[in-house]
Amino acid sequence: MKLNKEDIQEYNEGLLEFHQEKLAFTKKEVTNAEAIIQKLVDFQIAIPSWALGTGGTRFGRFSGGGEPATLEQKIEDVGLLHALNQASGAISLHIPWDIPKDAAAIKALADEHGLVFDAVNSNTFQDQADQELSYKFGSLQHTDPAVRQQAVDHNIEVIKHGIELGSKSLTVWLSDGSCFPGQINFKKAFENTLESLQKIYAELPEDWKMFVEYKAFEPNFYSMTVGDWGQSLLFANKLGPKAKTLVDLGHHLPNANIEQIVSLLMMEGKLAGFHFNDSKYADDDLTAGAIKPYQLFLIFNELVAGMDAAGMNHAKDLGWMIDASHNVKDPLEDLLQSVEAIMLAYAQALSVDKEALENAREDNDVVVAQNILQNAFRTDMRALVAEARLRAGGALNPIGFYRKMDVRDKLIRERGSKTVATGL
Amino acid sequence: MKLNKEDIQEYNEGLLEFHQEKLAFTKKEVTNAEAIIQKLVDFQIAIPSWALGTGGTRFGRFSGGGEPATLEQKIEDVGLLHALNQASGAISLHIPWDIPKDAAAIKALADEHGLVFDAVNSNTFQDQADQELSYKFGSLQHTDPAVRQQAVDHNIEVIKHGIELGSKSLTVWLSDGSCFPGQINFKKAFENTLESLQKIYAELPEDWKMFVEYKAFEPNFYSMTVGDWGQSLLFANKLGPKAKTLVDLGHHLPNANIEQIVSLLMMEGKLAGFHFNDSKYADDDLTAGAIKPYQLFLIFNELVAGMDAAGMNHAKDLGWMIDASHNVKDPLEDLLQSVEAIMLAYAQALSVDKEALENAREDNDVVVAQNILQNAFRTDMRALVAEARLRAGGALNPIGFYRKMDVRDKLIRERGSKTVATGL
Amino acid sequence: MKLNKEDIQEYNEGLLEFHQEKLAFTKKEVTNAEAIIQKLVDFQIAIPSWALGTGGTRFGRFSGGGEPATLEQKIEDVGLLHALNQASGAISLHIPWDIPKDAAAIKALADEHGLVFDAVNSNTFQDQADQELSYKFGSLQHTDPAVRQQAVDHNIEVIKHGIELGSKSLTVWLSDGSCFPGQINFKKAFENTLESLQKIYAELPEDWKMFVEYKAFEPNFYSMTVGDWGQSLLFANKLGPKAKTLVDLGHHLPNANIEQIVSLLMMEGKLAGFHFNDSKYADDDLTAGAIKPYQLFLIFNELVAGMDAAGMNHAKDLGWMIDASHNVKDPLEDLLQSVEAIMLAYAQALSVDKEALENAREDNDVVVAQNILQNAFRTDMRALVAEARLRAGGALNPIGFYRKMDVRDKLIRERGSKTVATGL
Amino acid sequence: MKLNKEDIQEYNEGLLEFHQEKLAFTKKEVTNAEAIIQKLVDFQIAIPSWALGTGGTRFGRFSGGGEPATLEQKIEDVGLLHALNQASGAISLHIPWDIPKDAAAIKALADEHGLVFDAVNSNTFQDQADQELSYKFGSLQHTDPAVRQQAVDHNIEVIKHGIELGSKSLTVWLSDGSCFPGQINFKKAFENTLESLQKIYAELPEDWKMFVEYKAFEPNFYSMTVGDWGQSLLFANKLGPKAKTLVDLGHHLPNANIEQIVSLLMMEGKLAGFHFNDSKYADDDLTAGAIKPYQLFLIFNELVAGMDAAGMNHAKDLGWMIDASHNVKDPLEDLLQSVEAIMLAYAQALSVDKEALENAREDNDVVVAQNILQNAFRTDMRALVAEARLRAGGALNPIGFYRKMDVRDKLIRERGSKTVATGL
Repeated sequence: MKLNKEDIQEYNEGLLEFHQEKLAFTKKEVTNAEAIIQKLVDFQIAIPSWALGTGGTRFGRFSGGGEPATLEQKIEDVGLLHALNQASGAISLHIPWDIPKDAAAIKALADEHGLVFDAVNSNTFQDQADQELSYKFGSLQHTDPAVRQQAVDHNIEVIKHGIELGSKSLTVWLSDGSCFPGQINFKKAFENTLESLQKIYAELPEDWKMFVEYKAFEPNFYSMTVGDWGQSLLFANKLGPKAKTLVDLGHHLPNANIEQIVSLLMMEGKLAGFHFNDSKYADDDLTAGAIKPYQLFLIFNELVAGMDAAGMNHAKDLGWMIDASHNVKDPLEDLLQSVEAIMLAYAQALSVDKEALENAREDNDVVVAQNILQNAFRTDMRALVAEARLRAGGALNPIGFYRKMDVRDKLIRERGSKTVATGL
Repeated sequence: MKLNKEDIQEYNEGLLEFHQEKLAFTKKEVTNAEAIIQKLVDFQIAIPSWALGTGGTRFGRFSGGGEPATLEQKIEDVGLLHALNQASGAISLHIPWDIPKDAAAIKALADEHGLVFDAVNSNTFQDQADQELSYKFGSLQHTDPAVRQQAVDHNIEVIKHGIELGSKSLTVWLSDGSCFPGQINFKKAFENTLESLQKIYAELPEDWKMFVEYKAFEPNFYSMTVGDWGQSLLFANKLGPKAKTLVDLGHHLPNANIEQIVSLLMMEGKLAGFHFNDSKYADDDLTAGAIKPYQLFLIFNELVAGMDAAGMNHAKDLGWMIDASHNVKDPLEDLLQSVEAIMLAYAQALSVDKEALENAREDNDVVVAQNILQNAFRTDMRALVAEARLRAGGALNPIGFYRKMDVRDKLIRERGSKTVATGL
Repeated sequence: MKLNKEDIQEYNEGLLEFHQEKLAFTKKEVTNAEAIIQKLVDFQIAIPSWALGTGGTRFGRFSGGGEPATLEQKIEDVGLLHALNQASGAISLHIPWDIPKDAAAIKALADEHGLVFDAVNSNTFQDQADQELSYKFGSLQHTDPAVRQQAVDHNIEVIKHGIELGSKSLTVWLSDGSCFPGQINFKKAFENTLESLQKIYAELPEDWKMFVEYKAFEPNFYSMTVGDWGQSLLFANKLGPKAKTLVDLGHHLPNANIEQIVSLLMMEGKLAGFHFNDSKYADDDLTAGAIKPYQLFLIFNELVAGMDAAGMNHAKDLGWMIDASHNVKDPLEDLLQSVEAIMLAYAQALSVDKEALENAREDNDVVVAQNILQNAFRTDMRALVAEARLRAGGALNPIGFYRKMDVRDKLIRERGSKTVATGL
Repeated sequence: MKLNKEDIQEYNEGLLEFHQEKLAFTKKEVTNAEAIIQKLVDFQIAIPSWALGTGGTRFGRFSGGGEPATLEQKIEDVGLLHALNQASGAISLHIPWDIPKDAAAIKALADEHGLVFDAVNSNTFQDQADQELSYKFGSLQHTDPAVRQQAVDHNIEVIKHGIELGSKSLTVWLSDGSCFPGQINFKKAFENTLESLQKIYAELPEDWKMFVEYKAFEPNFYSMTVGDWGQSLLFANKLGPKAKTLVDLGHHLPNANIEQIVSLLMMEGKLAGFHFNDSKYADDDLTAGAIKPYQLFLIFNELVAGMDAAGMNHAKDLGWMIDASHNVKDPLEDLLQSVEAIMLAYAQALSVDKEALENAREDNDVVVAQNILQNAFRTDMRALVAEARLRAGGALNPIGFYRKMDVRDKLIRERGSKTVATGL
C-alpha cells in the first residue's frame, strides 16, 4: 500500500495551529532554529530490511501480522515510513535474506518510494540451507581456509548485489569468536580474519567503503574476534583508507563511554557510521532513545562537533542506520519512534552553542559546560523536528496518522496475519 | 553570609519577561501546570552536611576554597542554597562530624535560615581518633560483641542528638561486609547485624523511622552485609514497622532497574526515601540527573504513582536527600544543579496522564505507553520549576544569581581558601 | 543405544594404575577423603530434557547430529550420561516439549536406565501452535485474566504430568516483564503474578515444592517480574512453605555475589536448589565451571555449610540441575564436563576445615581464612571424583570412554544427522 | 630487620618430607616439571613501594602497625618478602613519595637485599604541598599549557631518579579525564596528552621503555583520557617503539576479556607488562588470584604462548608488578599471597601442552581444548612453586615462617604502631 499525500496534508491541517504556536515559541528559544530545520530535512536514516518484521529472542518470537514476505514488500514498508516521516529515505539490504532477483526492477520500485540503497550487509553468522561448509566455528576467522574462502566469496557476492543497486558500502558484522577458554587462538583468529577481510577489501569499487562492525559478545560468549572499537580500528588501519569502524550502540560492555569512542574515531578519520538502538543490559536492540536518551544526545553532540571540525556533510559522509528488534511493538511504529528520538537528539546537538562550550572547557568551568549541554537537552525540539517533516511533505504526527489510516490492518488484509519476515 | 531578598527580587526582574512568556506557553502544553507548581513549591530536598565541601577519591582531593569548617557554617551554606532555590529547606547531619554542642543555638540558627533537621546519620565506617575499638572488620556485624555494642551505643547517641534537633529518622548506612572470600560467615554477619539493629531500633522514639540503606560494594569489595534491596527489606521486615529501606541511586550493580525496586518497596510499604545522585560506573556520586536523567524521571514516575496510590503526602512521607560528592565543582553550584534536575524530573512525573497510561498498559499498547512517558520527559518543565522558585521567593536562575553575587569569593574571604569541610 | 558395563570396566582397567596412585596421594592430603567419596557417590545432578540437543542464539543454531527426537530418546541420552558418570540419575522434563503419552511406559524406561524424574518445568514463555491466547505480553502477570488463567491451567497440567512420573517439584520460570519503560505497571504485574502463583500453589500435592526462579533480564529487556532473589523471596514468602527460590547462576546482574545470596536464602529456609551453568557476560548458559570455577566452589562452600548447619541431606534436600546450552559442543560431552566441574567444586567444599575457617573468621584473620578456601580449591580432587564414579560403576574418564565407543557416531547412525531436539 | 637464612632452612626442614613426596607425585603428572621449576626460579615480580602500607578507600583507612615510614624501610620490607619467597627481587618506586636523597646509598641498600629497581612511577593525580599549579582538571591533558609543562617536567624528573637507580622504564598512569558530560573536549584532551607524552618520550634514555597504563574509570567518573587498551595503543603507536601498553587487571569495564587483549597487544609487539591484582566489582585492588584465579591462569596462558612465539625471555622482556591495596590484611602477608597465586598461574600455563592445544583448535574440538586448559588449571602446582622457592633459598611456606618469626610484631616494635606509609 501507499499513503496519499493529500491525506497526510489533511491530517496535518488539524494539528497545524498548535504546531505553529509551538514552533514560534521554540524559535524564540533556539537562535539557529531555521538552520536546524534545514539540517533535519536533509538528514536521512536508513532502515534495515530485517527490521520490518517482529523480532525475537532465543526463547521465542511472537509474530505480528502483515509482515513483509518479499523484498518488494520490505521496500513498500520503508516507503510507508518515508512517506510518514520523510526521514527514512534509504534501505539497507541483507544478503542472502534479500537477494534482488531483478535489480533494475527493485531499483525502480525503490525510486518510486523515494528510496536509495544504503550499505549492503553480508551474513556469515548463520548457515543457509544450501551452504556447503558451516560457520559453526566462525567464518572469516575459521581455521579451515575453505570456510574462509566461502565466506569471502559470499561477501564479494554481496558487493556485486550492492553495485547493481547503487549501494556504496559493505557492512561486515562478524559473529566470529569463541564460546570457551581455549577454543581459539586469538592471534590466528585475528590474522585469518584480517587476511579474509583483505581479500574482500580488494574487491571493493573505488568509491565504496567497508564498515567493520564490532561487538562485545553474543552470539559468542567468551571472545569476539572483532570485539571492541580498538580491534575494529586495528583491522581498519591494516586494511586501508576505505575501511572504517561502525558503531552499534548495543555492542559494548556495560557502562562504556560511547561518545568518547565516537570522538576518537572521528579524530582518526575512521568512523564509518552508526547502528542506532538502545539497551539496558546487553545488545537488547530496543528503540533508539527508549532507555538512555541523554546518551544519544551526547553522541550526537560529538558527531556534530566532529563532522563540523572535519568539514563533513552531516547527511552524507557517515552511515546512519537503525538496527533494532521489535519484539513487542508493531515494527513500523517502533521505527517511527526510533527516528523521532534520533532526530530530537540531532536537533538538540545542533542547538549547542559550541563557542560557549569550548570557552567553558578552556576555563574548566564544569558547571557551565554541563549546563550548556543540559539546556540543549532540556529544550523541547519536537516542533523543529515536526516542522522539518511538514516541509518535506511528511506527517506532523507520523504514528497518529499511521493509526488513523489503519495501516497495519490494511497490511494484514493484504499480506495475511501469519507472514513472517526474514530477519532476527 | 546571607543573601538579600531584595537583591534576588531585583535579579529576577531582569529575567521575568522571558520567564513569563515561557511559563505561559508551558501552561498551554501542560494541563495541570498550576497543580505542579504548587507541589514543586512544597517539595524540599535535604542537603547532607557532608556535601558542602569538596569531595574526593582514594587518589586524592582537590579542595576548593571557602568550605564550611563548622556546623554553623554548614547551616549557613544550606541557608544560602535555600535562599536561592527555596527547595533545600532541610539539613541532614552526620555524627560525629557535626556534633551540635549547643543544640538549642543550632536549632535557632537553622530556624533563622528557614531550615529543619532531616534524618541524622551515624558513622561506623571510619575510626575516630578517640575510639576504643576499631571498625576495621565491621561494626554492627562484628564478631566481637564489644565492637557491636560500641557501634550500637554510637547509633543511640546519634538518635539523642537527633531528638534534640527535631529530626525524625535515623539513617544507618553500614559499610560492613568483607573484602575476600572466606573472610566472614554471611549468616552470622547478618544475624549479628540484625541483633545490633534491634538494639538501636528499641531506642527509637515513637514517631521516628529507621532508614536501612543498602549498597552493592565499596568500601568492601567482596560482600556487603546490607548489599541490596532484598537484604535491606529482610532487615526492615524483621525489625518492625519503623524500619524502612533507603535507596541511594549509586548503590546498585550495573544496569539495575531501580524504578522497579522503588515500586515494589512502595507496594510493601517499606520505602524510606532517597539519596539522590548519579553515576556511570559505580557509586560515582555525581550530580543528580547528570548522566541518566531519563532514569531519574522514571523513578519519579513510580514514586508519584506509588505515593498517590497510598494517599501519601509527596513532601513529607518519604525522605528526600542529595548524597553526592563534588570533586570538580563548587559544591553549592553542584547542589543547585542537583536540585534543579530532581525538580524537573518530579515535575515531568507529575505531568504524566496516569489514566491514559494505565489504559495503554491494560491494552498492551507499548507504543502509546512509551510515548506517554517520553512526551512527559520531552516537555520542557523549566518554566514551572522556575515559577515555583519565584513564588517561594527564590531566584529564577539560582546559579546565575550566585555567580552575580560572587558568593564563593565572599565565602573564601570570610573563611579562607584552605578550609576543608569534614566529609568524604 | 546403551553402554555395556563390561566395556566400561575394561576401559577403566587401562587407567587404574595411575588412578590408584593418584588416589593414594590425594588421601594423604585430604583427611576426609573417604567421606567425600561417599558423598560424591550419593550426589546426583538432574539433566534437563531440553539440554540434550544443540542450543543456539537468536542469530542461529548450528545443529549437530543424532539429537534425540522423542522423549524416549532423551531418556536414552540421560541414561548414557548416567552410565558414564553415575551422577546424572535424574531427568527434568519440560512441558509441552516432553509430554509423556504413556506415563507408565516412560517411567519404566527411565527406571531401566536407573533414572528418576526431577522437577517438571512449565513453559509460558513461548506460544505453542495450538494455543488460544498469546503470551507476547506475559503469562501469569498478564493484564487479561483469561491469559493468566490459561497459564495457570498449563502449570496445573504440568503438575499432573509430574505426579504421574513421580516428580516432587514444579519449577516456574517466568519470562514475564517488559521491554520498555511505561509498558507495565510493576505493582499490578507483581500482584497478578502472585495471584496466579497462588492458584497453582493450591494444586500442589502435599509433598511437592514450587521452585520460583528469578532472572535479571532476557527475554524481556527492561524489567522482569521475578527479576532477582529479593523478588523471588517475596513471592515465596507470600505463597507459603512449599514455595522456594531457585538460583540459576546466569540470571544475575554483572558481578553479583551469588554465594552470599545462597547463604541468606538458606538462612531463611527458602533455597530451592540450583540451575548450574557458567557465564561471562549475561545468561550465556556455558558449561558449569568453564569461566569462573572458583565462584562455583565458593557457592558449594556456602551450600555445604548451610546444609550441614540445617541438618539437611546433601543429595536430597535441594534440587540440583544443569541448565546450559550447547552451541559449539556435543551436548553429551558438554554435560559430562559440567557434571565433572560441579563434582570437583562439591568435593573441594567438602574438604574445607570448617572449624579452622570459623576460628579464622572469629579472629578476623583474613589471610588464614582466604588460605583455607584457596587451599581447598587448589587441591586436586579429580582422583576422588573419579573414584566415586569407579565405585558406582561409571567410567574413570567418561569423555574418553564416550569417544572410544564412538557414541555420537552411533547415535547419528541410529537417529540421523538432521534431527533437532526440542529446546532452546 | 632481616631474616636469617639458617632460620629459613631450619624451618623448611620440618616441612621437607611431605614436600618431597608431593613434589615426586607432581613430577609424575607434569612432564616438564623440572623446566617449570627453573622458570619459576627465574621469575621475579616487582613490589611497588606504595603497597607496603595499609591501603584504604575514600571512606577511610584502618592502618596497621609497623608500616615503613621511609624509603629505606620500604626496601627493607621488600627485602623481607624476597628473603621469604625469592620471587620479589625488584622494587618499583613512586615519585614523589619515594624520592631517593642519596641514590648511591639506596642502590647499595637494595643490593644488600638482592633487589633491583623496576619501573619508576610518576604521580600527576594528586597535588603535592609545594606544587605551583593544580592537577584538579588533569595534568598532561590540561587546557593550560603551563600545567601540562609542569606535569611533563615532573615526569622527566622521575626519569632522572630512575636513571640513578638503574630503572629501565617509566610507568605513566594518568587519572586525566572528566567527571561530567561536556567537561572536556575529548579530541583536544587526547591531543594535549599526546603532545605531553611526546615531550617525555623525547627524554627517555635509549634503553628505556615508557609504559602507558589505561584505566576505565576512577578517579574520573565520566571519561578517562587513557581509558582502554585501544586508546593506550593509539598513544603508544604515535609515540614510537619505546612506548607500550601496560595492563592492570582492575582497570577494565565489567566482563572484559583481558586475556584476548593481552594476546592482541603481544601480536602488535606492544604489551609492556602487568599490574597484578584482582577485583570483583571495579578497581578493587584485591590480592592477585583471590577472586578469579582461572582468569589469571588464562592470562598467563596467553602470555606464555605469546612470549614463546616471539622468542622472548619470560623473566625479563615484560614488566611484572603487583599493584594491590591491602585494606584488611597485613600488607606483607597479602603480597606473599599475591606472589603465590601468580606463580601458580604461571606454572599451570607452563604445563599446558601447546601442541595438543593447537591441534584441538585446528580441529575445532572445543571439548578437548577446554579440557587441556582445565586439566592444567586443576593440577596442583604448589609443590613446584615451593620447590622453586626452596632451591632459591626461600621458605617452603613463606607466611608460615613469617608468622613463626613474628615479623610484624618485630616491625611494630622497631617502627611503632602508628606509622603510616605513603601510598593509597
